[in-house]
Amino acid sequence: MGVSLSLQVEEVLHTEKSEYQTIHVLRTKEFGTALILDGIIQCTEFDEFSYSEMIAFLPLCSHPNPKKVLIVGGGDGGVAREVLKHPSVESAYLVEIDNRVIEVSKKYLPGMAVGLSDPRLTVHVGDGFRFMSEHQQEFDVIITDSSDPVGPAESLFQASYFELMSRALRPGGIVCSQAGTLWYSLDCVGNTLQHCASVFPRLHC
Amino acid sequence: MGVSLSLQVEEVLHTEKSEYQTIHVLRTKEFGTALILDGIIQCTEFDEFSYSEMIAFLPLCSHPNPKKVLIVGGGDGGVAREVLKHPSVESAYLVEIDNRVIEVSKKYLPGMAVGLSDPRLTVHVGDGFRFMSEHQQEFDVIITDSSDPVGPAESLFQASYFELMSRALRPGGIVCSQAGTLWYSLDCVGNTLQHCASVFPRLHC
Repeated sequence: MGVSLSLQVEEVLHTEKSEYQTIHVLRTKEFGTALILDGIIQCTEFDEFSYSEMIAFLPLCSHPNPKKVLIVGGGDGGVAREVLKHPSVESAYLVEIDNRVIEVSKKYLPGMAVGLSDPRLTVHVGDGFRFMSEHQQEFDVIITDSSDPVGPAESLFQASYFELMSRALRPGGIVCSQAGTLWYSLDCVGNTLQHCASVFPRLHC
Repeated sequence: MGVSLSLQVEEVLHTEKSEYQTIHVLRTKEFGTALILDGIIQCTEFDEFSYSEMIAFLPLCSHPNPKKVLIVGGGDGGVAREVLKHPSVESAYLVEIDNRVIEVSKKYLPGMAVGLSDPRLTVHVGDGFRFMSEHQQEFDVIITDSSDPVGPAESLFQASYFELMSRALRPGGIVCSQAGTLWYSLDCVGNTLQHCASVFPRLHC
């Protein structure tokens, strides 16, 4: 890559190697607390709302009456927080593979992790791929709030994953996935769109 | 600032000190040719369209019949190129204070500078502030395509500049200005909005 974005770090608040990845929590000068997985910025306090709102509001506002929602990934809780703002949502499930992301977020990112303590939410620690294969026609909306397609989230960008999502949806259901940025990852976005198009009848990008 | 964006430079194509500022032209790895004024990235071949289109299309598509357009700044030509795509535009004026920006862009950024050679465009080398004070009720749309509010463009962010623009517009006219980014320059954007609100009856941000 010929592009880099740098944040000035004021303090390393936490560092560990979990079963799945290296987790860092940093206090940055302009962006508040930042969560870093395997060296890649996942979210910062300052701007996470713009991501969390978009990935939650777009599918939920596109569905006429979303009652049951699944979030794959999203261990920081930010997307769950936004999903549960929608009054029609009766229950939500969050499947995060790395329990340490959940625990670290509860400690260092309480403004996001607040979403994990809503009584309508069930948190399941496990593999999203397997969880999906065990659930059929259950969800109105499925949101994939994953890290990038390297490391533990790699399988969440394959066609087979989109087929599983398709089967886990109720009729008329909607899926919404993060897929990288058009500016720097056009190839990856294109591949993901192709996988989607092979499974779903309607696409918005 | 606690944030930086870095582009990998493959070659310095041009460097000079003009009467107004230091001009660099760089060949970057992922973003093509980049124009740098006083150390600040102004545009790159790769993504300039997203800026040039937005700052031109928003006001031109908001006006029912824009015939005469003024661009203040914009010596690279990218905004002129987009303005002149609109079929209702009969004439456009571009006032750039630094002739060297124009010449350097013609040499190194031909994809942008193509906008400068349209026969409907008159290029005037001079001070936008002064040009505006000499024109009354002439333009349907005025676009300020300036650098940031330090150095030669500083006066283009003051309330007095917006008053001059207001007088240079025909009735029903529209102005559109770059004002920095909400993410990193919220104070500056707020100040600019205040100046605008003191002069113009309708604002969109």
